[in-house]
Amino acid sequence: MRSVRSAELDALLVTHPADVRYLSGFTGSSGALVLTGRRAVLFTDGRYTEQAKQEAADTKVVIAKGSPLAAASRWIEASGAGRCGYDPMQTTVSALGAMRAALTPKRRRGLFQAAEGMVSRLREVKEPAEIATMRRAASLGCAVFEEMLQDLTSSRTEVQIALELERRARSAGAERMSFESIVAGGPRSALPHARPTAAKLPRRGFVTLDFGVVWDGYCSDMTRSVSLGRVSPEARAVYDSVLEAQTKAIERVAPGVRAGEIDEAARSVLRRSKLDAYFAHSTGHGLGLEIHEQPRIGTNQMQELRPGMVITIEPGVYFEGRFGVRIEDMVLVTEVGHELLTTSTKALIEL
Amino acid sequence: MRSVRSAELDALLVTHPADVRYLSGFTGSSGALVLTGRRAVLFTDGRYTEQAKQEAADTKVVIAKGSPLAAASRWIEASGAGRCGYDPMQTTVSALGAMRAALTPKRRRGLFQAAEGMVSRLREVKEPAEIATMRRAASLGCAVFEEMLQDLTSSRTEVQIALELERRARSAGAERMSFESIVAGGPRSALPHARPTAAKLPRRGFVTLDFGVVWDGYCSDMTRSVSLGRVSPEARAVYDSVLEAQTKAIERVAPGVRAGEIDEAARSVLRRSKLDAYFAHSTGHGLGLEIHEQPRIGTNQMQELRPGMVITIEPGVYFEGRFGVRIEDMVLVTEVGHELLTTSTKALIEL
Repeated sequence: MRSVRSAELDALLVTHPADVRYLSGFTGSSGALVLTGRRAVLFTDGRYTEQAKQEAADTKVVIAKGSPLAAASRWIEASGAGRCGYDPMQTTVSALGAMRAALTPKRRRGLFQAAEGMVSRLREVKEPAEIATMRRAASLGCAVFEEMLQDLTSSRTEVQIALELERRARSAGAERMSFESIVAGGPRSALPHARPTAAKLPRRGFVTLDFGVVWDGYCSDMTRSVSLGRVSPEARAVYDSVLEAQTKAIERVAPGVRAGEIDEAARSVLRRSKLDAYFAHSTGHGLGLEIHEQPRIGTNQMQELRPGMVITIEPGVYFEGRFGVRIEDMVLVTEVGHELLTTSTKALIEL
Repeated sequence: MRSVRSAELDALLVTHPADVRYLSGFTGSSGALVLTGRRAVLFTDGRYTEQAKQEAADTKVVIAKGSPLAAASRWIEASGAGRCGYDPMQTTVSALGAMRAALTPKRRRGLFQAAEGMVSRLREVKEPAEIATMRRAASLGCAVFEEMLQDLTSSRTEVQIALELERRARSAGAERMSFESIVAGGPRSALPHARPTAAKLPRRGFVTLDFGVVWDGYCSDMTRSVSLGRVSPEARAVYDSVLEAQTKAIERVAPGVRAGEIDEAARSVLRRSKLDAYFAHSTGHGLGLEIHEQPRIGTNQMQELRPGMVITIEPGVYFEGRFGVRIEDMVLVTEVGHELLTTSTKALIEL
């Protein structure tokens, strides 16, 4: 792995499951992958003997008798490596202690070195095959959303809608949902992270659907706030402002633009309508094998966008106890600008 | 909190979401709870303003402008605390760095002290109200399993069965599934952690269902391997051995017994039938707000069971490429022995 050598490390110990999957293909929950300039060795336990052989076909697999992490640590020491990186964002204080405890005492101090985000930096820029997969995930999400419109009636509960989302997604081939779907009707649409309840959808008011599907390991993510019945002029004005904020933010997406500028593009539209105080979260996030990846699209984030990044743009406005609106698309950063991966309409839908 | 004082700490910083929920009621993903001998303060961010007030009604809530973890760390320093515990099992190396970086330089060394598992040790013994909730979760799981028997036909796919499990569970009031349900038919039943696929159930062979439901935050977990068609004499013998192993392990469950003794009770039955080499995982685990909690029921585990613990007992035997059998119940440790919370039959079902 070139980045191991360029970071002046002799080896890298990777334990975060999505990182292990990205580098080796192994999808089990218990894996410790060691990369050196020339080799890759995956340590796992007896539960995964067959699965590791199948999934990580290009990687040497070692079934550890005890802890895969300890076995990997001992292997690294025996390999003669002088410095081995680990990700301090993905390693608990206890795990680092266990890694060190597996070594002979004289190596406990120097061998393991914090090397933050080496794999997540690789993962944030998607390769063409990954983009193709994410395009398919996004497109499947849109198809499911459009089918769902017929189900959004005041005789259904939020939970029933969430189940129907999943049934449709999985029937169409999704592996699973990217996260627990949000279906929030009426005043509950003012809760950005609402969990579906047994409450029926309102006769009149917004329903926010925020959900994603996983296709071949990769996540989609989209949000639409749909109105049951005609919206009030006030709600229409809020919807229009959120849509304008979202559109302006997407228009700014291009290589070299800082993440904070994207966030500010959305926030400044809402500021003009005096709605910025009701937008209490960041504008978006990268996604891929995980639903939340780098980069974060938030206030003052200095990271520059690069071609191949896939991010969400999802401003929202929430009036506690009354209603909320959020609109979210997946956006690919291209060589020259951006491409929307979420293609469902954002015009206000009144059912 | 009494244990803060008895551990010679002035404060405890709790960040693991299930621990935060256990102590405060708050279910959001971004919370840092500070406990002192006298006070509890929950730091979260603007996304959770309304939810935190509702859920953590007995706790002072502070909405942090930036990182809740940094705000909590500064608050702890300002409180005059000399030593504040944190859980190294639940704290990344980076998070500990951020906690320390929020302090004035002279306090960065001494203030935060590793205090492993202080909350998980509280959580592993369930209070009566928690036991009542878990009994209900287990019972709901059993009801769903029994309903599912009519759906297990070779015209259905594993994914369809998994969706039907969830539909039935959520229709009956479950918040969500405890984990991604395992539905593994035919040779795939030899994969202990199989994910449901588009493969149809076999005309003849085992189907393993391993799933749980969440009721009011608490997880259930159960496994049954059911046969479509008549089993072969070999498969019957394997089933009987696994069932005997599971039964013998459950019989050993009582206060004061070490977790390793429970594991050995199951393993020794399989050893007699020369099946122990095919039992490549541990015998069980505690569960509660999370699907995997303390204690672990594995080889040589020295932890003693205590009344109020709820554990799974789930031996299995797996023949790669052929078939597998696993039987899992939830078991409550009582003052005098144990009580099965999973009540579905374990007699071999041939559909």
